[in-house]
Amino acid sequence: MPASLGDDQKSEIIDAALTRLVMANHILAREDIIDNFGHVSMRHPLRPDRYLLSRSRSPQVVSRGDIMEFTLDGELIGEDSRSPYAERHIHGAIYKDRPDVNAVTHHHARSILPFTMLDISLRPMFHMASVIGPDVPTWDSQHEFGDTNMLVDSMEMGHSLSRTLGKGRVALLRGHGAVCAAGDIRSVIMVSIGLRDNAALVAQTLAMGKVTYLTDGEIEKSSNMLLGAMPLARAWDYWVARAGYGRL
Amino acid sequence: MPASLGDDQKSEIIDAALTRLVMANHILAREDIIDNFGHVSMRHPLRPDRYLLSRSRSPQVVSRGDIMEFTLDGELIGEDSRSPYAERHIHGAIYKDRPDVNAVTHHHARSILPFTMLDISLRPMFHMASVIGPDVPTWDSQHEFGDTNMLVDSMEMGHSLSRTLGKGRVALLRGHGAVCAAGDIRSVIMVSIGLRDNAALVAQTLAMGKVTYLTDGEIEKSSNMLLGAMPLARAWDYWVARAGYGRL
Amino acid sequence: MPASLGDDQKSEIIDAALTRLVMANHILAREDIIDNFGHVSMRHPLRPDRYLLSRSRSPQVVSRGDIMEFTLDGELIGEDSRSPYAERHIHGAIYKDRPDVNAVTHHHARSILPFTMLDISLRPMFHMASVIGPDVPTWDSQHEFGDTNMLVDSMEMGHSLSRTLGKGRVALLRGHGAVCAAGDIRSVIMVSIGLRDNAALVAQTLAMGKVTYLTDGEIEKSSNMLLGAMPLARAWDYWVARAGYGRL
Amino acid sequence: MPASLGDDQKSEIIDAALTRLVMANHILAREDIIDNFGHVSMRHPLRPDRYLLSRSRSPQVVSRGDIMEFTLDGELIGEDSRSPYAERHIHGAIYKDRPDVNAVTHHHARSILPFTMLDISLRPMFHMASVIGPDVPTWDSQHEFGDTNMLVDSMEMGHSLSRTLGKGRVALLRGHGAVCAAGDIRSVIMVSIGLRDNAALVAQTLAMGKVTYLTDGEIEKSSNMLLGAMPLARAWDYWVARAGYGRL
Repeated sequence: MPASLGDDQKSEIIDAALTRLVMANHILAREDIIDNFGHVSMRHPLRPDRYLLSRSRSPQVVSRGDIMEFTLDGELIGEDSRSPYAERHIHGAIYKDRPDVNAVTHHHARSILPFTMLDISLRPMFHMASVIGPDVPTWDSQHEFGDTNMLVDSMEMGHSLSRTLGKGRVALLRGHGAVCAAGDIRSVIMVSIGLRDNAALVAQTLAMGKVTYLTDGEIEKSSNMLLGAMPLARAWDYWVARAGYGRL
Repeated sequence: MPASLGDDQKSEIIDAALTRLVMANHILAREDIIDNFGHVSMRHPLRPDRYLLSRSRSPQVVSRGDIMEFTLDGELIGEDSRSPYAERHIHGAIYKDRPDVNAVTHHHARSILPFTMLDISLRPMFHMASVIGPDVPTWDSQHEFGDTNMLVDSMEMGHSLSRTLGKGRVALLRGHGAVCAAGDIRSVIMVSIGLRDNAALVAQTLAMGKVTYLTDGEIEKSSNMLLGAMPLARAWDYWVARAGYGRL
Repeated sequence: MPASLGDDQKSEIIDAALTRLVMANHILAREDIIDNFGHVSMRHPLRPDRYLLSRSRSPQVVSRGDIMEFTLDGELIGEDSRSPYAERHIHGAIYKDRPDVNAVTHHHARSILPFTMLDISLRPMFHMASVIGPDVPTWDSQHEFGDTNMLVDSMEMGHSLSRTLGKGRVALLRGHGAVCAAGDIRSVIMVSIGLRDNAALVAQTLAMGKVTYLTDGEIEKSSNMLLGAMPLARAWDYWVARAGYGRL
Repeated sequence: MPASLGDDQKSEIIDAALTRLVMANHILAREDIIDNFGHVSMRHPLRPDRYLLSRSRSPQVVSRGDIMEFTLDGELIGEDSRSPYAERHIHGAIYKDRPDVNAVTHHHARSILPFTMLDISLRPMFHMASVIGPDVPTWDSQHEFGDTNMLVDSMEMGHSLSRTLGKGRVALLRGHGAVCAAGDIRSVIMVSIGLRDNAALVAQTLAMGKVTYLTDGEIEKSSNMLLGAMPLARAWDYWVARAGYGRL
């Protein structure tokens, strides 16, 4: 953030970010990525040491006033008696560990659940899923934390999960769901949808034979293309129309 | 119920209960838990020896005036020539046998049907299904009653089914469907949806390999968390929005 | 039909029948039983030697003015230059052969297609499907007619199919779809939906183990119950609400 | 095109074509054939050496002003700074190689993806899919082009794909999707939907046993029938109603 930004400019940048974050909540609900539980955040556009995330609400019903601001350690900025998500530490830990990540989703898209407990690769098998990256590791809360309520509700657990995520865009959580991380809010939606669809397709293909995963070269070239400005803009237009905003 | 409640207070409590019961009908229809047949009830909030249940209508179209009041033996309170559900005895028998239960659904969510006739465990395999509890027993009307029209339409059959349910939250009915029972109306919706999703996921996982069910500790801790005030409120907000009520 | 019916009464009976037939068209479209092709008819309520069927239109868009009247041999009553369905002879042949049948659907509900070419029983495995009856035979146009355009477009083919249907409520057509026949329009919708769901459930169950079909006694008792006045009225209410008519 | 057409007539022909092309975009989005990516084109109705295709937008949100005109080599006609689809060469190459083709879709309907990498025939197994033709070949970009971003973004790649398509109506693209080609815009929608449904049904049937594909004679006779004026008009009415246009 240039030091020379005026207050009006700052305010506009924050306004645009909040609008996009609220829309992302509704898009992820519409696309059956997130249902009653799960969440999406973005790094603060002017303060990389903070992130924006709704108070504890289902994304389907999130609106502007629900967005809260947190330090990367999950401390609430400002006075607000409303409850934050217990699992907000997933977001903070990843933002801390990954300066390249500016948007994170945590969800339980149903098609991925079987893969959180099976030794079957979720490597992309079609180009639109290439954005999930070549490796999809799984984190099991049992390994470090034993029997829990399955929530990632401390910075310690968040960092443990973040270590499994590593430099990738996706990690699965055994018996729970997934986290997706990307450079911006539109990309993380594309990653989340690509993961959902790839899981469904790998399952369908395995029922009939062998999966031919994309090559490393195909994954790199396809994902670079899809995460470019044009495809992201085109996909965003589509998602917002489906989420009921009409044509922007 | 404190003896000191005034008439206005009683009326408000009943009013709130009826509103919530009608909404539960619409939610269960929207979530494809109940279609033309199936029903949801709640124990009367002021008279634990009675329960509230729609007249014989599909939940999708139930409204306030359709709710009837019954003794736990299924006797209608008051004058009403409209027909009650033949299977209302499922509700009465469970309320009689289980003082801890205040809401019951009976439904035929399609994903569970195969499991009513297979020797495959429906124990939870992901945290959101933990609310169904560790064991999902199956009741077969053939065992005690032979060839029937498959309906649980007497107190005798209701108690037989209730014995299979035992102290749990879910029982399957061979070639028929399921009953779900919980401490309140929002919890029983969460149990019903958790059962539907767990069945679908166990089927999908088995097609590719072995299911890793949650541990006893995970089931207990996760379900205690999910059936807490915050998660129930958050889920309810989501369900009512999807059922067309908009944001409350 | 009593000879003593006045013209007003006759007109009201026909009016009610047409209304219900148009609604049945929309219901079957809404429930994904019929898409662009497929049709539903009813026997004329006052002239058992005639039947009512839309002109060649997709049920989704059928309205009152589209309904035509035919002799059981498929001859159009009255002047009308609009095209009838080429496959109307399915309806006429069944009405001729089965005086107990007053409503017929022909459709291609996707879940049944695999069973039109597999030696796997579609006998009911849950009570709501009991209405399809204990046996679901398959007709193959190849046997008598060789390579065709797959349409049942002559009375000869209609009667051939009707012989396979026999005294039952359902017959499958290899590589094509199904016919459902029942005593009235609401029953034939229940049979069509029961068939669709039973096919999906048998497939899902077989993927995990062995299907436990209902016993003969269960099928008879359940179907007699479901095809009674109360369950049909309750199901109809549900279907019309879902088809967008709101609550009647 | 007769040389004697007046300007008004030409304008009306183009107007009708554009209207239909925009509707086709919305229909294919509604039927889950095309999501954020994928496209549909038609050959220019008066200039067979040109084709009409939206600028780079998701079909769901395409409107009249988005349609561009291209030479068969993919050169934009007229001034327009907006970006075309990178994969427009699929369309140009097929129009060049196949004078009988006047409409093309490129899509990633999910049900077909497994078949792009499996040695399992997608030959039609039910009459409504007969329009895809007896053979469904697969093109693999690796064979001639090695690791790419999976897009068919040059005339060279377009012609390579077109050679795999040959004289057929459908070709699959490994790890990517499909192209469908037909004589007019309504037919290519029917082919696209037939392909989508046939893929889903072959998968479902294989899970239980052996697929009985249609005979050559059945495929030829059924597809000739379905691609006739009446069935196409009836299907179009259905698609446009579902796409939200109401009854035309």
